Amino acid sequence: MGGKNTSGRGGGRFQAPTYEEKGAGPSGAALGAFSATLRNATAGPAKIMALKQISSNKCFNGFQKVFEHDSIELKCKMKFGIYLPPKAESGKCAMLYWLSGLTCTEQNFITKAGFHQAAAEHGLIIVAPDTSPRGCNIEGEDESWDFGTGAGFYVDATEEPWKTNYRMYSYIKDELPKLINANFPTDPERMSIFGHSMGGHGALILALKNPGKYKSVSAFAPICNPIQCPWGKKAFGGYLGSDLSKWEAYDATHLVKSYPDSHLDILIDQGKDDQFLSAGQLLPDNFIAACTEQKIPVVFRLQQGYDHSYFFIATFVNDHIRHHAKYLNA
Amino acid sequence: MGGKNTSGRGGGRFQAPTYEEKGAGPSGAALGAFSATLRNATAGPAKIMALKQISSNKCFNGFQKVFEHDSIELKCKMKFGIYLPPKAESGKCAMLYWLSGLTCTEQNFITKAGFHQAAAEHGLIIVAPDTSPRGCNIEGEDESWDFGTGAGFYVDATEEPWKTNYRMYSYIKDELPKLINANFPTDPERMSIFGHSMGGHGALILALKNPGKYKSVSAFAPICNPIQCPWGKKAFGGYLGSDLSKWEAYDATHLVKSYPDSHLDILIDQGKDDQFLSAGQLLPDNFIAACTEQKIPVVFRLQQGYDHSYFFIATFVNDHIRHHAKYLNA
Repeated sequence: MGGKNTSGRGGGRFQAPTYEEKGAGPSGAALGAFSATLRNATAGPAKIMALKQISSNKCFNGFQKVFEHDSIELKCKMKFGIYLPPKAESGKCAMLYWLSGLTCTEQNFITKAGFHQAAAEHGLIIVAPDTSPRGCNIEGEDESWDFGTGAGFYVDATEEPWKTNYRMYSYIKDELPKLINANFPTDPERMSIFGHSMGGHGALILALKNPGKYKSVSAFAPICNPIQCPWGKKAFGGYLGSDLSKWEAYDATHLVKSYPDSHLDILIDQGKDDQFLSAGQLLPDNFIAACTEQKIPVVFRLQQGYDHSYFFIATFVNDHIRHHAKYLNA
Repeated sequence: MGGKNTSGRGGGRFQAPTYEEKGAGPSGAALGAFSATLRNATAGPAKIMALKQISSNKCFNGFQKVFEHDSIELKCKMKFGIYLPPKAESGKCAMLYWLSGLTCTEQNFITKAGFHQAAAEHGLIIVAPDTSPRGCNIEGEDESWDFGTGAGFYVDATEEPWKTNYRMYSYIKDELPKLINANFPTDPERMSIFGHSMGGHGALILALKNPGKYKSVSAFAPICNPIQCPWGKKAFGGYLGSDLSKWEAYDATHLVKSYPDSHLDILIDQGKDDQFLSAGQLLPDNFIAACTEQKIPVVFRLQQGYDHSYFFIATFVNDHIRHHAKYLNA
């Protein structure tokens, strides 16, 4: 049987892919590595990018897989999770990107959120990347839980020593979708994005900075106004330096003020007992006020008794997937 | 807000309970520790047993909590997870006990299985204990992943140096239900049990050794005939010595041969691509053959393409909860 993940052990061992990608990408899956010729805009000529399958587990008749690849943007090996719904065996699927929060890897969402049934039913491919470059041997990268490793904040750093590797914004916006579209049965035109906390911030800014790129956006407890909160000030100061205009370019509350149209349907769930809400890290009121002023429609649900955990996410993830499916499968 | 679990951090910090137990148990929850006067049959006179709340997270309108207590049977601190569905706020609920597999703690099922929605809908309290005593300082307890810590195998050990602490059978059968019934709004008469792998073995033997105690039983990839497989031989040899009759008393395939009636509805899901199936650790065929001979009804579903992981469990856990709810809420 060879190398299936088990509940307690497992994980991390190499195994040959068991899922046959059809309709897109090369078919050399039996060799244990996918490869695709991709043109990378920043890297110049076509490069070979190989995907190495780390794990594959059947789930709700589809497959939850994890792959590793060499990232050009981040100049390190990166892992991502991808759920291929049953529909991916016979046709192209819309994609929903999930961005995780501080300290998470690609594992948290795929093991804890309980999204697979809804994704299977709506026929959505769910992509869950890691939250930062890893193992780049940058001085200080592992000193804090809210900066460096596990805390890329979905920006392109401009400051030393971060700017060479910490390019999560471009990785999520360009490199990862190209890799996914080249290797899996996707419809590149149908893509949405959601996330949690730091990843909720990431989802909002990616949607707001790229009108039309994503069909819809949603977030759980997003960091809505990072330039005004301790987490954001630390991260943006480190990655972007002291120029406030560079900070504003990655701040959802600032970006919404210049968003060109109102065709973006935004859903936000926020636990009312979230300790990071009361600590002033999330600041949804500032974002809602800016949306209201700009007449950008946003559904904000303050959920009584819920906290910042994956138990909160699991409770409402079906609503979010339904929200996105409405646009992705329209 | 103080001490809520967060996705990446959190866990393990003490916090005051936020859920009000009603209708059962003492109401001194605000002090951060429950206490109840329990008569323990083996320990003699009434003893005070305190529950310390480790975490509490709202989930699908109920609460997923973890408690710690001093176990009399196991002579060490033990943790367990308990999900209190919304119905527990206003009335007594039936209970479903989950037994986990090798290497697991109380965390695996509560974070990975995605059972909360179904438990909330059916109004079931779900109890998820740990898989062995911990930190007993027994020589060799941490040397193997399939023996000692994380591998209690739901037996009462008779051999040194295990017999003082390794009494998981009595812990699950007697001590834990007494503790649960004294502290939470349960209906002690309505109880069922299920589990995974080593915990599937545990669920089957607890049901088969105690006719009428559990309304129903089910299992994911259970170790069906431990006296015939490498895991079982190692564990039973270590905990029970060399007397085969002592082994048979904890072997589901043996026990079913003397099960007195056929009122037990057994559901088993088994992944066809489970590496431990092909390795001869699970041996469901032996159990099915014994059930057939005894005319004990069992629904055995061999699930194409599924492995031994929690992705397999998550896919079918709703079916299992429905199976139990049919009897528990009849």
